[in-house]
Amino acid sequence: MKRDFVTIDDLSDSALASLMDLADRIRSNLRGHAADLPGYLMGSLFLEPSTRTRLSFEASMLRLGGRVITSSDPDTSSSVKGETLADTIRIVDSYVDVTVLRHPCAGAARLAARLARGPVINAGDGSHEHPSQTLCDLYTLRSERGPIAAQTVVLYGDLRYGRTVHSLARALVRFGARVLAIADGGLSLPEFVVDDLAGRPGCGIREVRINDMEDVFRRRGVEALLIAPEVTLPPAVGAAPLELNLRDQKVHAIYVTRLQKERLRGEAHGTSLPILDHRFLRSPTFSDSIVLHPLPRVGEIARELDTDPRAAYFRQAALGVPIRMALLLWCCGMVDLGAKAAPPARLEACTGGACANLGCITVKEEPGFAEVGRDSDGRLRCLFCEERVSEPSGS
Amino acid sequence: MKRDFVTIDDLSDSALASLMDLADRIRSNLRGHAADLPGYLMGSLFLEPSTRTRLSFEASMLRLGGRVITSSDPDTSSSVKGETLADTIRIVDSYVDVTVLRHPCAGAARLAARLARGPVINAGDGSHEHPSQTLCDLYTLRSERGPIAAQTVVLYGDLRYGRTVHSLARALVRFGARVLAIADGGLSLPEFVVDDLAGRPGCGIREVRINDMEDVFRRRGVEALLIAPEVTLPPAVGAAPLELNLRDQKVHAIYVTRLQKERLRGEAHGTSLPILDHRFLRSPTFSDSIVLHPLPRVGEIARELDTDPRAAYFRQAALGVPIRMALLLWCCGMVDLGAKAAPPARLEACTGGACANLGCITVKEEPGFAEVGRDSDGRLRCLFCEERVSEPSGS
Amino acid sequence: MKRDFVTIDDLSDSALASLMDLADRIRSNLRGHAADLPGYLMGSLFLEPSTRTRLSFEASMLRLGGRVITSSDPDTSSSVKGETLADTIRIVDSYVDVTVLRHPCAGAARLAARLARGPVINAGDGSHEHPSQTLCDLYTLRSERGPIAAQTVVLYGDLRYGRTVHSLARALVRFGARVLAIADGGLSLPEFVVDDLAGRPGCGIREVRINDMEDVFRRRGVEALLIAPEVTLPPAVGAAPLELNLRDQKVHAIYVTRLQKERLRGEAHGTSLPILDHRFLRSPTFSDSIVLHPLPRVGEIARELDTDPRAAYFRQAALGVPIRMALLLWCCGMVDLGAKAAPPARLEACTGGACANLGCITVKEEPGFAEVGRDSDGRLRCLFCEERVSEPSGS
Repeated sequence: MKRDFVTIDDLSDSALASLMDLADRIRSNLRGHAADLPGYLMGSLFLEPSTRTRLSFEASMLRLGGRVITSSDPDTSSSVKGETLADTIRIVDSYVDVTVLRHPCAGAARLAARLARGPVINAGDGSHEHPSQTLCDLYTLRSERGPIAAQTVVLYGDLRYGRTVHSLARALVRFGARVLAIADGGLSLPEFVVDDLAGRPGCGIREVRINDMEDVFRRRGVEALLIAPEVTLPPAVGAAPLELNLRDQKVHAIYVTRLQKERLRGEAHGTSLPILDHRFLRSPTFSDSIVLHPLPRVGEIARELDTDPRAAYFRQAALGVPIRMALLLWCCGMVDLGAKAAPPARLEACTGGACANLGCITVKEEPGFAEVGRDSDGRLRCLFCEERVSEPSGS
Repeated sequence: MKRDFVTIDDLSDSALASLMDLADRIRSNLRGHAADLPGYLMGSLFLEPSTRTRLSFEASMLRLGGRVITSSDPDTSSSVKGETLADTIRIVDSYVDVTVLRHPCAGAARLAARLARGPVINAGDGSHEHPSQTLCDLYTLRSERGPIAAQTVVLYGDLRYGRTVHSLARALVRFGARVLAIADGGLSLPEFVVDDLAGRPGCGIREVRINDMEDVFRRRGVEALLIAPEVTLPPAVGAAPLELNLRDQKVHAIYVTRLQKERLRGEAHGTSLPILDHRFLRSPTFSDSIVLHPLPRVGEIARELDTDPRAAYFRQAALGVPIRMALLLWCCGMVDLGAKAAPPARLEACTGGACANLGCITVKEEPGFAEVGRDSDGRLRCLFCEERVSEPSGS
Repeated sequence: MKRDFVTIDDLSDSALASLMDLADRIRSNLRGHAADLPGYLMGSLFLEPSTRTRLSFEASMLRLGGRVITSSDPDTSSSVKGETLADTIRIVDSYVDVTVLRHPCAGAARLAARLARGPVINAGDGSHEHPSQTLCDLYTLRSERGPIAAQTVVLYGDLRYGRTVHSLARALVRFGARVLAIADGGLSLPEFVVDDLAGRPGCGIREVRINDMEDVFRRRGVEALLIAPEVTLPPAVGAAPLELNLRDQKVHAIYVTRLQKERLRGEAHGTSLPILDHRFLRSPTFSDSIVLHPLPRVGEIARELDTDPRAAYFRQAALGVPIRMALLLWCCGMVDLGAKAAPPARLEACTGGACANLGCITVKEEPGFAEVGRDSDGRLRCLFCEERVSEPSGS
């Protein structure tokens, strides 16, 4: 079977752990792997601006002794002649051994994986997911703070359009970590992520009201969710929010994201969350928290933190190379991560209904591929972007 | 002698056959050639948008163990500082062992080959030629349909600005295939191609009127030419078109091209030719035809055909890599394709007259290189773009 | 210690000579070095348009058997999301073994070298310096004309914004060559270069009036400086210019630069210096001069010179590869260039004052890094762009 990596759920918990073990071994001798993928060719297909992720994947492939072909500028590629993703991916796939795809539409990587003969890695699809960033995030959490199961992680910022947290939240829940999702008003985790999390075994979700740190959490519009094993399920409809004193928490990491301005569809948005700075981290709650960020940052984290030992975001970026090297070795069939199965598919395919999400690949570019499925609660969803789909009338 | 590949006529028939044989051997073990060009460096110079051709050449070089430097964005290169092609090519040539050039001006590759010390490969020069695509096309025709001499090939679409058919038509004629060129009004094969074909031994050209498939061929403006050994030469001036019933033909392949919108110089153009779909291919004439396209397509071929076994365009794209690997091996002097000579040069250099083609490299950018020659019928032509040149007054 | 190459003064005279010796050996077998940097990765970070320099560095790294990741289009990189250089460099540095940086701001390379763990090479920082071009220039002068100490070199054109001459002038002075700097009015060597040169041992600077070649040197606005060991120091304030007859000079090389239009800040500028052509070089002064140009040229050198044996600019470009290969070997710790120290730092760090140069990295993008120092004459300067800084009031 082809080893695609479209979502973080494509790898089981034990496979993720093995991948991190492998990354540890690679990291100890980064220049010693130049013969691991001889003759292998990676297609680096970035149909949306990127530096970090593209360079990280390319560095990883090259450090493994593989080669890379790159198409990174939408303006100088065949897309300007009007080519669709389906055509582009079939061509590039026919040239290479593994394809890394970034695309502005949700579901693009899943579509590409369907059409490609070789493995496809999702390097970000619209506001949907960014699972290789999650590998890097988990690997940093484990390297810096030990077992993930024991951790409490705060997600902080734009959680709606920040695709990295959509993949990360699921991974954290799978490992049993506690997640406190603090977002600007209107920018909390999207329904497709919340519904999916709520349907996972041993995971409860509850709106919370934070009683301390008023200057942060009592601002107009701030929304907070606690996603954790101990939250009682199901939440009573209309139930009051949980009352929470942050000073009783020990937060292992704060994961900050920037406002994804390029995804806002005409919505005006300032951010009302305060930026992370020395003052913010002075609270006992965060005295031992590392600070993560998928980067680039545009002001969410004060530069004065750069020299604070808790500032882990540059170390996090550096870890992207060994963990992506491990991922590429797996995708190219060079390592076995054990037989343990990945989590079951989130959706069971069915017929009827059509996606209406303007950011979905099947709506924006590839209507011929529209397909739907039902989630664990029986709700109809698009198989590509996971957004809710209206039940077909008369059914 | 330097092994440039500026036009398909730079390789003899037997050399082309040997190249395809070599591609067959390469294809059987694509990852096994990573030591064929050790220490060789290719310059990938694409001064016009491209994905497919550039990635195909780069994949080919990398699979041979060579390395690649790329300049693919006119907006971030020295051209924005006002540099001419002549300067750019001399520099890049001095860095590398072989240069692949795409340029918006006709004749650019010939000019580059003159100035470079190392071999130059034409990856498309304006509306002029695209000979490496023709290698790929011929290789697909041979792989899928056997000897080219026995085939009838329909060229279909924009044959005026679609440079790939300018190279392909000549190659097909050289191998003795029959060509039926069906174009939108105003977009039939340009005069410089038709004149050249008509001057080749054993090749006749005649306007045809197709009597069946009225829905396709009786549309306003559709123009059809039969280019085949059996067409009597010379055609009577003002002779009536040949009457042809397509149902009596067996077409081996339809080669479809898109409207080259970026080449239209202010001309308004819709296309009146119907798109290729299941209905089109239902005709007995095409029951056994494979469908080729240099891609990208923008609507000329319905997506419903993608799963039809006759749809060969994705297989065709994939064959671009092994055949370009073979070409690079030849250009770098690693293989010998036999002593058989290439066809004679199309033009014999002479003096007098000056090109007036606004799309020609010597008119648009490099006036210092203007040169002319006479074709086999004694007509004066530009040595670079092959367009007719007025006889100098008083001569 | 980390082997950065931010300025030409980072290498001692003897190290420069050894580097050129190494380049000579490399040049004799350019394809034989594909195993010199196995497993090494170079980051090619060009945040400003470039072809020549980027391709030259990439060709050099690849010919050494290293690998390259490239970010060359500011429009498709993280900078469009608002990332600062300091963040970008820390990330890229964490992926690679050596970074080559071009940036539109003066001082960018020095800032990058501070933040990076691995070596940083300055491939051009605003209007400030371009030391690897100087390596190439020196290497060409030595290869074509012998010992540099014995040469007289004319710098000709836009000497204010042409960063290559800012590095070259210092190197020539260090080797004891005589420099005649001839510039368009308003475009002579900037104060930060002239002051630095004047402070170097054995170097005098004097305004000159050239008495012959009136058609060139008596044009309105032409400014000429003689920078040479024999010029008496210090020049009397208000001293009359030196009178000079060019016919008494033997010029070994003319180094021509183009008007750096992209650096002019709203200033209107035509050039009044005549272009170099056969007529210009007919003067006995230049009968034996080679012509150099960092390229691209946009009209400063007539094309008719391209076939003149004195036209050395294409040979100069070609020499960029072996000398950059030598540089990369040094930066990556593969060769030792001797223990002889580099020249002392130009500025001694101190406190007080702030840079006001709008083209400086610390003003435009990274205010947190502002630092100043005093030059050998006690003047306060920015440590990054070297421009004068006002003394803090009250100090």
